Amino acid sequence: MTDRLEDFRREREELNKEILACGHLGMKRFFALDHQTYEPGALDEKTKELLGLVASTVLRCDDCITYHLVRAGETGWTRAEVIDALNVALVVGGSITIPHVRRAFARMREVPGLRGEVE
Amino acid sequence: MTDRLEDFRREREELNKEILACGHLGMKRFFALDHQTYEPGALDEKTKELLGLVASTVLRCDDCITYHLVRAGETGWTRAEVIDALNVALVVGGSITIPHVRRAFARMREVPGLRGEVE
Amino acid sequence: MTDRLEDFRREREELNKEILACGHLGMKRFFALDHQTYEPGALDEKTKELLGLVASTVLRCDDCITYHLVRAGETGWTRAEVIDALNVALVVGGSITIPHVRRAFARMREVPGLRGEVE
Amino acid sequence: MTDRLEDFRREREELNKEILACGHLGMKRFFALDHQTYEPGALDEKTKELLGLVASTVLRCDDCITYHLVRAGETGWTRAEVIDALNVALVVGGSITIPHVRRAFARMREVPGLRGEVE
Amino acid sequence: MTDRLEDFRREREELNKEILACGHLGMKRFFALDHQTYEPGALDEKTKELLGLVASTVLRCDDCITYHLVRAGETGWTRAEVIDALNVALVVGGSITIPHVRRAFARMREVPGLRGEVE
Amino acid sequence: MTDRLEDFRREREELNKEILACGHLGMKRFFALDHQTYEPGALDEKTKELLGLVASTVLRCDDCITYHLVRAGETGWTRAEVIDALNVALVVGGSITIPHVRRAFARMREVPGLRGEVE
Repeated sequence: MTDRLEDFRREREELNKEILACGHLGMKRFFALDHQTYEPGALDEKTKELLGLVASTVLRCDDCITYHLVRAGETGWTRAEVIDALNVALVVGGSITIPHVRRAFARMREVPGLRGEVE
Repeated sequence: MTDRLEDFRREREELNKEILACGHLGMKRFFALDHQTYEPGALDEKTKELLGLVASTVLRCDDCITYHLVRAGETGWTRAEVIDALNVALVVGGSITIPHVRRAFARMREVPGLRGEVE
Repeated sequence: MTDRLEDFRREREELNKEILACGHLGMKRFFALDHQTYEPGALDEKTKELLGLVASTVLRCDDCITYHLVRAGETGWTRAEVIDALNVALVVGGSITIPHVRRAFARMREVPGLRGEVE
Repeated sequence: MTDRLEDFRREREELNKEILACGHLGMKRFFALDHQTYEPGALDEKTKELLGLVASTVLRCDDCITYHLVRAGETGWTRAEVIDALNVALVVGGSITIPHVRRAFARMREVPGLRGEVE
Repeated sequence: MTDRLEDFRREREELNKEILACGHLGMKRFFALDHQTYEPGALDEKTKELLGLVASTVLRCDDCITYHLVRAGETGWTRAEVIDALNVALVVGGSITIPHVRRAFARMREVPGLRGEVE
Repeated sequence: MTDRLEDFRREREELNKEILACGHLGMKRFFALDHQTYEPGALDEKTKELLGLVASTVLRCDDCITYHLVRAGETGWTRAEVIDALNVALVVGGSITIPHVRRAFARMREVPGLRGEVE
């Protein structure tokens, strides 16, 4: 499955570029605001990424989960911590989130720092 | 499309096993609780599976719909009854559920007891 | 709390009447279709009301829950069966449905056939 | 019911002021962006308000519906047009939106330009 | 990506036919009602398609977005107007809609009238 | 507004007691599991409460927001940190969450540790 994360990244980047180039100022501002949201503020970057991951999971958005899993790995969360966060989402969001939790586990195999085995 | 249900089953089983083996007690308990929910209680197993199907449809989760369609077939619901249940979901959930109802019809072609033709 | 169900009924009836009298044919047809959905078909009326209750609970609509609780009582479901159905909704929909399950329990105090004590 | 719209307005204004004064730059920017979204662009203000109304209805947010009903009245939509838009939301969102459509009708009694009778 | 829209159309048509032929009168009526919803009424067809697009986007249904993008192109909305409508959906529905907005941009490449370049 | 939090607490406690006493083992287990979810694990209690708050906000559940605001105050989050978390929810969930963010600000006036003024 390793290259699937690569596919996601390439398509995401390509389409984001198309959106930012489309000339709509409002979209451009929203994308900038979205980016700034996860920058350090009263909360640090690391904490905010975990909030983004849980929000994405209860709202059941696989692409958003993938993005925040990668960021969670980059900001230093461990696999056990990420699983504990996914469990909060699972209990809040119910069994309807299970397919997304399953896909999150599959995705973690591709995310440095979140793989199940010793790295 | 027949092997697609097989694919779903294999991936689901494989990832469920990975989740149950990950060492998080809360997730393990949630999965057990989810399983117990559909066991006979004040309501029988058959009725509960139909409730699960309708809940999955209004919440628009294709994997959950697939799972409960299979269980609906196994617990003895007929194709006409399942369609009548999907219709409740369609009216409650609106036209936004139509793509999921379409995929439910496609999936039923693979589910013993729910196929359109004489079996 | 008994008169609160009465308030709900009066307001609901009054506004439904206003909607049906507003002259929009599409709305009129939707209301008719919604009504027909719970009439006996491949599934009987009683089963469909329970489907409506669970759909309303996972979608977290208190007014819809109230309506279907009343109908569940009228079509002969017992308190234990209704609670078992609410439990399916709770597990599918997660802890975010708990406030609605709480209000469902409060509402059942007013619904003949679903009250906690011997009637 | 006339003063209820007044209550909504006062509380909304008071709390918006509190949020904008809280010192969080991200929230301030989001509120500004939200405001700009409905300003004339490729689409005019009037069209966008109707889009906001339908989005609010399918997402089942009564306060948002109230806000956009007022704006729909101010930008010149007629009662019949607003009802036709609510009907799109009703069919897309299903019967679960009915309680919100009912409250939209109740609210329209207070909105200049959208009242049922000759004004 | 051009043939993907063709695939969507073929599968959609094939399954809609199967649903309409399944003998459930309620579903048949819902599909008819859904169709009538976008016919000219107090609002014209063109306006209603844009309402359908925004409703589909905030409810995050890719198939519904595809359908309404095609209809938006057919009823004469320009690319700039469609993007302005998607921006309303983005701000109302939040960053969780971004993957769907991305896919809407990808889809517009296949929709006559909504392509990015001079046609 | 001070006593409104008290009202929420009393009703919540009373109805939780009624649910736990209703004799349904599944509900009892779900409530226990929900409680355990926020106990220290790979993540500490404090972090999990913030995850619960953001999940509740994007899912737009006022009662759940109130509960987690109280717990956020108890576990030591400051007002500025809670506002930063609400901002993540606002951007992820979009303007449809604004009424809930407004009510969260109103509620914080009653929560020790989260009030706007010097305490």
